Amino acid sequence: MVKSREDITNKIMIAKVEKGLTWSQIAAALGKSKEWATAACLGQMQMSKEQAQIARKLFDLSQENTAWLQMAPYKGSTGTSHDPLIYRLNEVISVYGDAIKELIHEEFGDGIMSAIDFTLKVEREQCDEGDRVRMIWSGKFLPYKSF
Amino acid sequence: MVKSREDITNKIMIAKVEKGLTWSQIAAALGKSKEWATAACLGQMQMSKEQAQIARKLFDLSQENTAWLQMAPYKGSTGTSHDPLIYRLNEVISVYGDAIKELIHEEFGDGIMSAIDFTLKVEREQCDEGDRVRMIWSGKFLPYKSF
Amino acid sequence: MVKSREDITNKIMIAKVEKGLTWSQIAAALGKSKEWATAACLGQMQMSKEQAQIARKLFDLSQENTAWLQMAPYKGSTGTSHDPLIYRLNEVISVYGDAIKELIHEEFGDGIMSAIDFTLKVEREQCDEGDRVRMIWSGKFLPYKSF
Amino acid sequence: MVKSREDITNKIMIAKVEKGLTWSQIAAALGKSKEWATAACLGQMQMSKEQAQIARKLFDLSQENTAWLQMAPYKGSTGTSHDPLIYRLNEVISVYGDAIKELIHEEFGDGIMSAIDFTLKVEREQCDEGDRVRMIWSGKFLPYKSF
Amino acid sequence: MVKSREDITNKIMIAKVEKGLTWSQIAAALGKSKEWATAACLGQMQMSKEQAQIARKLFDLSQENTAWLQMAPYKGSTGTSHDPLIYRLNEVISVYGDAIKELIHEEFGDGIMSAIDFTLKVEREQCDEGDRVRMIWSGKFLPYKSF
Amino acid sequence: MVKSREDITNKIMIAKVEKGLTWSQIAAALGKSKEWATAACLGQMQMSKEQAQIARKLFDLSQENTAWLQMAPYKGSTGTSHDPLIYRLNEVISVYGDAIKELIHEEFGDGIMSAIDFTLKVEREQCDEGDRVRMIWSGKFLPYKSF
Amino acid sequence: MVKSREDITNKIMIAKVEKGLTWSQIAAALGKSKEWATAACLGQMQMSKEQAQIARKLFDLSQENTAWLQMAPYKGSTGTSHDPLIYRLNEVISVYGDAIKELIHEEFGDGIMSAIDFTLKVEREQCDEGDRVRMIWSGKFLPYKSF
Amino acid sequence: MVKSREDITNKIMIAKVEKGLTWSQIAAALGKSKEWATAACLGQMQMSKEQAQIARKLFDLSQENTAWLQMAPYKGSTGTSHDPLIYRLNEVISVYGDAIKELIHEEFGDGIMSAIDFTLKVEREQCDEGDRVRMIWSGKFLPYKSF
Amino acid sequence: MVKSREDITNKIMIAKVEKGLTWSQIAAALGKSKEWATAACLGQMQMSKEQAQIARKLFDLSQENTAWLQMAPYKGSTGTSHDPLIYRLNEVISVYGDAIKELIHEEFGDGIMSAIDFTLKVEREQCDEGDRVRMIWSGKFLPYKSF
Amino acid sequence: MVKSREDITNKIMIAKVEKGLTWSQIAAALGKSKEWATAACLGQMQMSKEQAQIARKLFDLSQENTAWLQMAPYKGSTGTSHDPLIYRLNEVISVYGDAIKELIHEEFGDGIMSAIDFTLKVEREQCDEGDRVRMIWSGKFLPYKSF
Repeated sequence: MVKSREDITNKIMIAKVEKGLTWSQIAAALGKSKEWATAACLGQMQMSKEQAQIARKLFDLSQENTAWLQMAPYKGSTGTSHDPLIYRLNEVISVYGDAIKELIHEEFGDGIMSAIDFTLKVEREQCDEGDRVRMIWSGKFLPYKSF
Repeated sequence: MVKSREDITNKIMIAKVEKGLTWSQIAAALGKSKEWATAACLGQMQMSKEQAQIARKLFDLSQENTAWLQMAPYKGSTGTSHDPLIYRLNEVISVYGDAIKELIHEEFGDGIMSAIDFTLKVEREQCDEGDRVRMIWSGKFLPYKSF
Repeated sequence: MVKSREDITNKIMIAKVEKGLTWSQIAAALGKSKEWATAACLGQMQMSKEQAQIARKLFDLSQENTAWLQMAPYKGSTGTSHDPLIYRLNEVISVYGDAIKELIHEEFGDGIMSAIDFTLKVEREQCDEGDRVRMIWSGKFLPYKSF
Repeated sequence: MVKSREDITNKIMIAKVEKGLTWSQIAAALGKSKEWATAACLGQMQMSKEQAQIARKLFDLSQENTAWLQMAPYKGSTGTSHDPLIYRLNEVISVYGDAIKELIHEEFGDGIMSAIDFTLKVEREQCDEGDRVRMIWSGKFLPYKSF
Repeated sequence: MVKSREDITNKIMIAKVEKGLTWSQIAAALGKSKEWATAACLGQMQMSKEQAQIARKLFDLSQENTAWLQMAPYKGSTGTSHDPLIYRLNEVISVYGDAIKELIHEEFGDGIMSAIDFTLKVEREQCDEGDRVRMIWSGKFLPYKSF
Repeated sequence: MVKSREDITNKIMIAKVEKGLTWSQIAAALGKSKEWATAACLGQMQMSKEQAQIARKLFDLSQENTAWLQMAPYKGSTGTSHDPLIYRLNEVISVYGDAIKELIHEEFGDGIMSAIDFTLKVEREQCDEGDRVRMIWSGKFLPYKSF
Repeated sequence: MVKSREDITNKIMIAKVEKGLTWSQIAAALGKSKEWATAACLGQMQMSKEQAQIARKLFDLSQENTAWLQMAPYKGSTGTSHDPLIYRLNEVISVYGDAIKELIHEEFGDGIMSAIDFTLKVEREQCDEGDRVRMIWSGKFLPYKSF
Repeated sequence: MVKSREDITNKIMIAKVEKGLTWSQIAAALGKSKEWATAACLGQMQMSKEQAQIARKLFDLSQENTAWLQMAPYKGSTGTSHDPLIYRLNEVISVYGDAIKELIHEEFGDGIMSAIDFTLKVEREQCDEGDRVRMIWSGKFLPYKSF
Repeated sequence: MVKSREDITNKIMIAKVEKGLTWSQIAAALGKSKEWATAACLGQMQMSKEQAQIARKLFDLSQENTAWLQMAPYKGSTGTSHDPLIYRLNEVISVYGDAIKELIHEEFGDGIMSAIDFTLKVEREQCDEGDRVRMIWSGKFLPYKSF
Repeated sequence: MVKSREDITNKIMIAKVEKGLTWSQIAAALGKSKEWATAACLGQMQMSKEQAQIARKLFDLSQENTAWLQMAPYKGSTGTSHDPLIYRLNEVISVYGDAIKELIHEEFGDGIMSAIDFTLKVEREQCDEGDRVRMIWSGKFLPYKSF
């Protein structure tokens, strides 16, 4: 089952390359942010029926493929953690993670930043010494329940 | 050597708890952002001579302890990756990491977001359905060198 | 820092054994459920100032120890996953986890059961063929945010 | 052998998606709870001859496939532990596992909650601040044998 | 807490060596089989109050040490799996495990051999080509519950 | 090469299911114990030329397949250690392993129980409170050579 | 997606072997150093449109294959770390890594040697006692940002 | 034994910090390159009797400590592989390792670059766009012996 | 690429079984020791052009297959470390490795026994209490370079 | 218990260094080969009462320490597998292990080379191109029992 979804990701990537589509164009067609749309195409988010039909046309998928896009996917850990770009993201947490934890607790008390009620932006930040990647993570604070 | 630095982190945490200091107050004393200051106190950043002297007074450290604060530390992976707050940060990368990679490459070409020429902000974002944690990551884009 | 909290857990366990306290008595003294109170004593939950003072008396802790009880702890993975009782809990998820996932998605759509906005009960269930352990897990459903 | 059973799970999932079946409908057809029926379809439980024939019709399986459904399967660990929903289940045990152990021993003495003589319910719990997932785990207590 | 129990195991071993006790003598004193008694001394089984008092005298333990012997211990995985003798036991399961599984299912149906309602004997088996170690494992068969 | 043997195991299992053979019948045909015969069919033991010919007929194998059965196989670790039945076997060693080691050394001195000059029996043990699985392990004691 | 790129690496290697091409010839055709060109062919670097067309001719690739060569690849960890040649490289870092860290910090302060703004040379160094492999690593020093 | 050497490394580091010594000064005192001298002080190389006496004076070591410096040490893997500087070194091999292997084999045939008959230089390379770290690795080529 | 070589190993093994060849016969045909020849056929050593042509005839390989035999292979770790025979080899090093290290250093000083400039013999040693396997390992001593 | 033995190894090493003893002298005093004696001192072999008394005098051990030397030790895996000398031993098995397996089976049939009924020699082999380390491993062949 998991494997079947990966095969569709592969078909999507091949179609994207062959048709010369950008993630921004795909996002616009799906009516969502480029961050969510890319994650959805890569098999991490569940599409609505309408989104799945749009994806079917964009990527020449079959009707059966489309059904898979509407399921809640098995998410996470695609095996690419050795890629230098992705490693840098993990390194930030390795180096700054405890500091982030201390600061969130100082501001909010015990709890977490949700990774589910969560939005993400990836932007270019212009800078004279070389442009920067700017990411904005926003997750609802969830306090630990005391019972 | 690494172990010696951890002992100082421990002393800093005990002093912080006993004196009732906040990370924001510590950061103000050090003249740095709360994000950098917290990371530095937790043994991830190198302090200048002046910062180390301020830390010495804040946390009642010895002169020998202070010398350690001025060294470039062995960084990363403090063994807290099972903590729910820190896990959520890693989960974001597990779920959205490939999408982030695709979007950075679409915008900038092949390369990475630096985790060294990097700044971080952790903020409260007020929201009617419950306040949110907002993090801003900013890292210089570094293109892969072709040679 | 993490280590310091473990030392206090150790002191609590020794005092509990020596004084012949039960977790239910400790919970009653703290004014909380036995499940939360036990987790808090074992270093997984943050106590309020009042709870920490009660714990101080119950377990003959020092004032410094009490300060640690009021911090948001580093949680999770105490290294006991090979214990047969704890392994059985993990085995349930290993065997039934995908089924649980399918059924939650069928009922609620894509999202998760919160482990933060979460309560737990552990009870005896009387049964003619031998009494049973009955656990009730209740966690808020959090839908994945589409953005 | 193990692999052969996985292929049938895959066929079942494809047929379920294509026919628009729900797990509740499948469970009703098999005459079992939805929790057991889902686990059985996902390859974790052994079907009786009658159940296997019902499954054959529901999912258009071959007679050979049906034979596999009647075998005691190789169970556990389907490789989905990074999925956020399944991870939350494991996190509950990571955070509350030692407390559960302490409480079961306090109530029953040394032993375990069986994961074999075990039943599971997954339910919606209505709640004003947002509905909750409620799971009831019931496992026979098995005392350690002293000999 | 776990660590405290290990320290007592260490004291027991030192006392056993210094006093020249055998496991069989210790078992006789405790009124149990040598297999159970050895496991209990090594921190894997919970002693009754009476057994703990006998152990206290045998090994010159303190009253506090004795309290620990009466707790349900954190069991399993003592870090000795590379020892050649222990490795051979694991190798038997690595080589014959699937066969054992097939044969138990053929005889009993789906379920397990309990490791809790379990007894063990370790014996010398005399043999002309060299004596043999004979172990008898006896565990209650537990059928998987269908619900 | 290893993979080729696994394919034959798969063919054997399919033929066994389709023909409704039991392991006991297969063992009788091969003229060996059911424990050895099952292990051999699952790719852990080397068959003689005669046994391989019997297996060829039982399972409709090709002549090439038969050649593989006569080779000394790559043994061990078939990836099923998460199966609850097999895990229980490993748990026995995790809990009782050090005790077994102590008792064998007390009886025989330093050395091991051979896993090569080894026989195994798996039997039903009738019992009023529920039948039991009884396994008899018998391995030659091998003393460490001093040189 | 990742897998698709690996298939092309495989095609490139087969064509290289069949046509008797050397890495130096391939590098000359691509107009790059042999180090970069080899890495690019092995799927670690992104080719320009022109380079991809040259590669297409050299290795008889299809137009679709060529599109993949122009993407920013998922890099790193090709699973060959047990190869003796590659292990020696890792061993150098295992033995000399902390010394390298100390010396870079002594010369430059806290920061890293970039692995992105990086060039590499692999050369023969003639020597009477046997020729040597000489590698020159050159990476931009990146100072940790203080903020 | 291994641990004893680590304690001496710790003493060396403390003395170095307190006396304000640089690795270059230490190397000059020992009459060796700064790369070898640093590795030796960090416990990776064996000192001669004379070098050990010099180290004794530099770092105020005891005579017993000095004996340890003259032993062939247990080398490698000091547990710092998560440090960002050291990780970059490993990443170079993760990304370029297969290319290095291909190029060494193209130039020399099957064999390895020795990590034992090996020298290392770490230098500053001045550069207008920011200075660079330059490392020169030189290891004897060792051809695989055919026998 | 790596995978392609494994496929050829598989072809070689099948041909060897079908033709009833022994490793000694294969070694004689290749003009090498049986130890080197077996390793080469299993994909660990590089054949010369002449050896590859002999192998082509022995095992009915294609011309393309032959080209692969002439490449320097990716070596090591074929995933068979759980096999009891291979495990025993590793156990010898686990038990005697530190002693070997101490003795080599006592005799030769700091350095290693080369695994590249290395020869191996595997022989039968006749013995009244049962024949023995005798292996002779011979590797050039390489002293650590001091620089 | 295990830890107690390691402490004695440490004492032995310190005494050996301080007294300037060689392993050969120690072996002569114990009346055993230098290979066995070194392994025994490093905690891998059990000494007789007489040997333990000799060791007590050689290394100035206490009577309690001596008792530990007479126990059958927990053996294997001392955590030094990253040491270059020890890694080379493991690499030989990684590269030649499957070949060794094939050759032993060709000569002896299915079974193993014992690592218990085993002797080891480590010698200098003089050679014009540089002296070599020569190891002779001799282990009894144990055939797999068919039952």
